[in-house]
Amino acid sequence: AIQSIDYKTSHRTITLPGLINIAAFVPGIATRGSHDFEKVTKASIAAGFSMIRIMPLGFDSWVTDAGSLKVAQHNSLMGAYCDYNFAVAATNTNADQIQHVTADVGSLFLPFNHPSGSINKVATVIAHFAVWPAHKPIMTDAKTTDLASILLLASLHDRKLHVMSVTTKDDIKLIALSKEKGLKVTCDVSIYCLFLSQAEFPECTALPTADDQRALWNHLSAIDVFSIGSLPYQLAGEEAVPTVGIADALPLLFTAVAEGRLTVEDVRRRLHDNPTEIFELHEQHETTVEIDVDRPYVLQAGPVWSPFIGRTMRGAVSRVTFDGSTACLDGELMAVPPKGMDMSAHSLHSHS
Amino acid sequence: AIQSIDYKTSHRTITLPGLINIAAFVPGIATRGSHDFEKVTKASIAAGFSMIRIMPLGFDSWVTDAGSLKVAQHNSLMGAYCDYNFAVAATNTNADQIQHVTADVGSLFLPFNHPSGSINKVATVIAHFAVWPAHKPIMTDAKTTDLASILLLASLHDRKLHVMSVTTKDDIKLIALSKEKGLKVTCDVSIYCLFLSQAEFPECTALPTADDQRALWNHLSAIDVFSIGSLPYQLAGEEAVPTVGIADALPLLFTAVAEGRLTVEDVRRRLHDNPTEIFELHEQHETTVEIDVDRPYVLQAGPVWSPFIGRTMRGAVSRVTFDGSTACLDGELMAVPPKGMDMSAHSLHSHS
Ligand SMILES: [Zn+2]
Ligand SMILES: [Zn+2]
Ligand SMILES: [Zn+2]
Ligand SMILES: [Zn+2]
Ligand SMILES: [Zn+2]
Ligand SMILES: [Zn+2]
Ligand SMILES: [Zn+2]
Ligand SMILES: [Zn+2]
Repeated sequence: AIQSIDYKTSHRTITLPGLINIAAFVPGIATRGSHDFEKVTKASIAAGFSMIRIMPLGFDSWVTDAGSLKVAQHNSLMGAYCDYNFAVAATNTNADQIQHVTADVGSLFLPFNHPSGSINKVATVIAHFAVWPAHKPIMTDAKTTDLASILLLASLHDRKLHVMSVTTKDDIKLIALSKEKGLKVTCDVSIYCLFLSQAEFPECTALPTADDQRALWNHLSAIDVFSIGSLPYQLAGEEAVPTVGIADALPLLFTAVAEGRLTVEDVRRRLHDNPTEIFELHEQHETTVEIDVDRPYVLQAGPVWSPFIGRTMRGAVSRVTFDGSTACLDGELMAVPPKGMDMSAHSLHSHS
Repeated sequence: AIQSIDYKTSHRTITLPGLINIAAFVPGIATRGSHDFEKVTKASIAAGFSMIRIMPLGFDSWVTDAGSLKVAQHNSLMGAYCDYNFAVAATNTNADQIQHVTADVGSLFLPFNHPSGSINKVATVIAHFAVWPAHKPIMTDAKTTDLASILLLASLHDRKLHVMSVTTKDDIKLIALSKEKGLKVTCDVSIYCLFLSQAEFPECTALPTADDQRALWNHLSAIDVFSIGSLPYQLAGEEAVPTVGIADALPLLFTAVAEGRLTVEDVRRRLHDNPTEIFELHEQHETTVEIDVDRPYVLQAGPVWSPFIGRTMRGAVSRVTFDGSTACLDGELMAVPPKGMDMSAHSLHSHS
């Protein structure tokens, strides 16, 4: 599933295949009439992400059944600027209903850390495993004991599991050991967690501690994917808008590349190759992102809050080509009609 | 490690090898000057149990370090009427201290459901696995998510794990599935849980529901051991004494044998063969228990509370022979000096 390397380096830009955000947070995902989806896809394509996988848990609405999925799908008709797919969230009671939407979503999400509606019973997880197609992705935000628990259940039921937004030393070590022992587990880390910690934001317990953050960097080989996730939105507090954090992703990573902490290969694998393979995503043809990696610049305050304002960064997105047309040039969206597609039903498996 | 079958059936009595209670609850286990140990061993030998494994968590004291173990050992000098061994309980902070008592206890207990001092962090469990000898038994009372979690950790760290006092359908199913998939897990069920449920005692959530109890019976093949545990003490409430539940064990089981719900073989395996094998216990020579299985009798009220007073039972213990001498005849203890031994340091492994 991995395309041969198709980027070239020049002294100014690097060209990568269209990037993938496997955890796009859309606050009003299933809120009737919300424009959040449109805003998130627009910001995504401008930031180099031509494919997003949308988390089923928004800020005040979730996709848990056919009705809420219909709302999300309807909202997406307002304008999709990149390809996308939906997921459905498991609840303690919806294992039976989920089969009606299985074909229309890309993955099942098992939430363990959501204020209302976390699932935490072994029986619930098993009930969902029993009805979810064997080859379709399953994701979870489980941590600590819950994480160990669901890793066992996935292993006993022979399911692949993707763990989202790992933030602690214990969890990344557990995942690394599980991989070593042959469990079919993959994981992502929110890009913000690699560059921000509770040392700077003591009140934000969703961030790693400085010690946890060091452990994440030390276990880079166990991190399959870099994601955006809901963390920027949580961190922004009252400043939160649906698009927060999206534009920061590539500059943060390419600044780390310039500092020698990451390679271009590290980034491409975790924002394209691995997501494509893990989630069996379609290849996006004539879709690329060109990144200016040489010129440092100071991040200026703009309409979207960022904790990195005033910082010297690298890695500005200079051009995004989507399906053969230039979608974005030097940060400006082109006046082209949105042509992102709902790829939820895409599968490499004829049997799924 | 399993002795050949050495019991004979007559029309009146069955002779079994000395039985083992792998979960003896001693309320004042580590309370200075407590006579609870003496009382429990006396009641045990009278009830056919010639070997007991003592839970490290008492009612108001625990064995968690060298100091508390010393108190427990000292209390045992007041009189041990059967063989016994001690265990040590893991806490969130004692992984380092436990190595000083490893040689003097028979097993490590990982408590997940104790009011004060449950361990619940993955890191704590791993810290204990790191220092506990590979071949010494590890026990836990973990349930639901915690159970799944510790099963994974035990599997990743290649440890055998014994799960104590399973009470729910979900847990016994999870254990049965784990066994099927090759995990090294064993379990016990408290004898009270096979015969009492929340249907009769709605306020006692430590008992299984009627539905859970049915599931336990339906998964009998996944239950390695029958135990006594702390459940009788919990159930007795204000009537609780250290010896509650001990004398009820064999009559309950042999009444079930008479009713065709269990075989003698089922009982012998779960009170002798399996405990011996799982915990690598020593063989007790010239130690037997004779059980009158024919004559039904009505259980009379006595000094020790029982929820079965007035019920018609079978399976009275007619004689217990301990180390070649008759220790008990028709319920009366013989006037022989206590000669139970501390078998905590016994091991079949030269390497442990
Ligand atoms: Zn590609
Ligand atoms: Zn509309
Ligand atoms: Zn597949
Ligand atoms: Zn034997
Ligand atoms: Zn005394
Ligand atoms: Zn003394
Ligand atoms: Zn062994
Ligand atoms: Zn020995």
